[in-house]
Amino acid sequence: MNLSIAAAEALDEADALAEMKGRFILPEGVIYLGGNSLGALPKHVNQRVSQTLASEWGADLLRSWNSAGWVDLPRTVASKLERVIGAAPGSVAVTDSTSVNLFKVLAAALDKTTTAGVGNRRKILTERNNFPTDNYIAEGLIRLTGDRHELIRIDTPAAILPELDEDVALLMLTHVNYLNGYRHDMAALNAAAHRVGALVIWDLAHSAGAMPLDLTAANVDFAVGCTYKYLNGGPGAPGYLYVAPHHIGNCQQPLSGWFAHETPFEFSPDYQPAGDIRQFLCGTPPVLSMAALDQALDVWADVDLSALQEKSLDLADYFIGLIEKKCAGHNLTIITPRERKLRGSQVSLTHPDGAYAMMSALIAAGVIGDFRSPNILRFGFAPLYIGFVDVWQAVDRFAHILEMRIWDRPQFHTRKTVT
Amino acid sequence: MNLSIAAAEALDEADALAEMKGRFILPEGVIYLGGNSLGALPKHVNQRVSQTLASEWGADLLRSWNSAGWVDLPRTVASKLERVIGAAPGSVAVTDSTSVNLFKVLAAALDKTTTAGVGNRRKILTERNNFPTDNYIAEGLIRLTGDRHELIRIDTPAAILPELDEDVALLMLTHVNYLNGYRHDMAALNAAAHRVGALVIWDLAHSAGAMPLDLTAANVDFAVGCTYKYLNGGPGAPGYLYVAPHHIGNCQQPLSGWFAHETPFEFSPDYQPAGDIRQFLCGTPPVLSMAALDQALDVWADVDLSALQEKSLDLADYFIGLIEKKCAGHNLTIITPRERKLRGSQVSLTHPDGAYAMMSALIAAGVIGDFRSPNILRFGFAPLYIGFVDVWQAVDRFAHILEMRIWDRPQFHTRKTVT
Repeated sequence: MNLSIAAAEALDEADALAEMKGRFILPEGVIYLGGNSLGALPKHVNQRVSQTLASEWGADLLRSWNSAGWVDLPRTVASKLERVIGAAPGSVAVTDSTSVNLFKVLAAALDKTTTAGVGNRRKILTERNNFPTDNYIAEGLIRLTGDRHELIRIDTPAAILPELDEDVALLMLTHVNYLNGYRHDMAALNAAAHRVGALVIWDLAHSAGAMPLDLTAANVDFAVGCTYKYLNGGPGAPGYLYVAPHHIGNCQQPLSGWFAHETPFEFSPDYQPAGDIRQFLCGTPPVLSMAALDQALDVWADVDLSALQEKSLDLADYFIGLIEKKCAGHNLTIITPRERKLRGSQVSLTHPDGAYAMMSALIAAGVIGDFRSPNILRFGFAPLYIGFVDVWQAVDRFAHILEMRIWDRPQFHTRKTVT
Repeated sequence: MNLSIAAAEALDEADALAEMKGRFILPEGVIYLGGNSLGALPKHVNQRVSQTLASEWGADLLRSWNSAGWVDLPRTVASKLERVIGAAPGSVAVTDSTSVNLFKVLAAALDKTTTAGVGNRRKILTERNNFPTDNYIAEGLIRLTGDRHELIRIDTPAAILPELDEDVALLMLTHVNYLNGYRHDMAALNAAAHRVGALVIWDLAHSAGAMPLDLTAANVDFAVGCTYKYLNGGPGAPGYLYVAPHHIGNCQQPLSGWFAHETPFEFSPDYQPAGDIRQFLCGTPPVLSMAALDQALDVWADVDLSALQEKSLDLADYFIGLIEKKCAGHNLTIITPRERKLRGSQVSLTHPDGAYAMMSALIAAGVIGDFRSPNILRFGFAPLYIGFVDVWQAVDRFAHILEMRIWDRPQFHTRKTVT
């Protein structure tokens, strides 16, 4: 690997996806390696939201529920997402937060009274280092439903398969781990779980928008995801959920708000779940956030997701090569797997006691990644708007921070609320 | 009552709240009597959201979680709301949808393992004509938790008190009914429920922002509400919930996402609920919608809510008087109570078979109210931006539509998705 800046420039020249960066508004002088946490602002989102505010809400007022299609936004937006994650038409709903959506699909999968239900089994398997909210949500549901289930936290990916037995109701995993970027083999784990009669719930937060997904081919039962990372929907943008077509109508979720009703505007006193994916909605859709996301997803209409993944892996390989060469001897450890099929679009490093301060110093130097407790530096390579020169410059600044021990200055050790 | 337009003009002249209309952007030529469904657009919301998009998200990117205070929005916004609804500091969280929030407080109130818990009792009382999503959510929770509870739908407000006995866990009511505008006596029902050891959950969707509320003095246990009606937060704006200070920490809600954790950014593998109202949050806050709402709530900083309520009741009385005089003989029935203490800020009429078409014709004539199945015309009198001349003109147009039988033209009978 040629690690010169000239080589980086040549890679950018040859990058067929380089022009995609023009679809985003990015601040000058910043190298943004935080797209795995909060995606960048796509162009036209501000105009779209402004129009939703001024013309739809301001001028047309409640008429816009019909005339501007507000009432259909959970499905309008979902249809754009279905292509990005390889889901069949009508299998995705955009609604609520990822956490709330996970609660719904967990409960639906466990509902013993339905065809899909596996609630007569005791175990829910997950990983100890899964994104915490997923495990907290499972804990909350288990407690609410009388401790009929047990959440089993597995320590390593290799230990998952041996845990699958006929007392496993659900395997609940995040496809790409938020801490170390490890990527599971989705299809293989689904097949293994199905062999013992278990169902699988995938959290796609760190994979959707960074790589091609084919939920249909991988035989996914349920999935949830976040739209504000690689999908660039904006801070706290609505989450989504996927239900395999053969489960829709054969399981029931408990957050049965009026938008999940077959005929919400009949205002029937009794609940009748919608016969389609709308049964996984709940309350009134958040129109402003949905409009921003709807616009943001237009970025994807012509993106080759396989090429996108190759680029992101190339960027990460380039980053790893540069770190190993230019940041050696500073006690940094790369905790992301080297094998390309075992990782997503981020690279994580650890440092025994300097990780927080190093990231603070990097941010002050215009290289934005993030820190995760207790000792992890995360760098995301959102391939729509990051290039090889960006990576080269990021590592160059990092090497300078390490060599001059800039990170050890007191101001970089003061913790902020969000780390 | 003097029903001339000159009298209406004089009432507007004398209205100390008339200048509040200047805080909103309203379309020309429209009389907006739909503020009980979707509040109007306050000035400065568009600029605020645009700034959140461009400066906070676009330029500062993930740094804005700290620098722009995104992480604290659920409480920043809640503190503005606490004044409007008479809630103690730290007792309100703005988050999720009203439906999701209702699920949380229902489950928390019923949680048998806590101090607040009344889940050893069987009955949940509600009204048959409560807003449907509230009853659907209760049904969903009851089903999920193994049918240990029964939802009892009461037909009339007068029948509530006799149903209160020591097998009642919860009384779940909407303060002002969405169909007929009937207003309950919150303090009296709380006292009666508490006498038999039951707890009460109030839905404030149709009262907050239309009248003074004092949740503390009324001894409210739990409440939820909507911010896109009289609070003008925008379509699908985040909901909120209230938990009485003596219940906070003494009950547990099951949607235990990471924002409900004592230290979310420690990313602990185990759930430890926050010791304060944050334990009722769930996932990542929807920043764009929260920013719009935060701005919208600034309207309320200096509003005298008692004067506001008096004005809204005066507007409704004026409307009722005009309807009785100018729309007589057209088979319309006023279903909203005449007694001022028994109603909110809306007036509802029924017509045996013409209600939908009449409302369509009114909307075509620039008078925007809404229709509710099967035969109700709703008119909301949001007193921040509606005046007496507006009411006079609305009824004048309605009388014309009735006299000329304009509403009976075929185009007004075609149903839209949202009715």
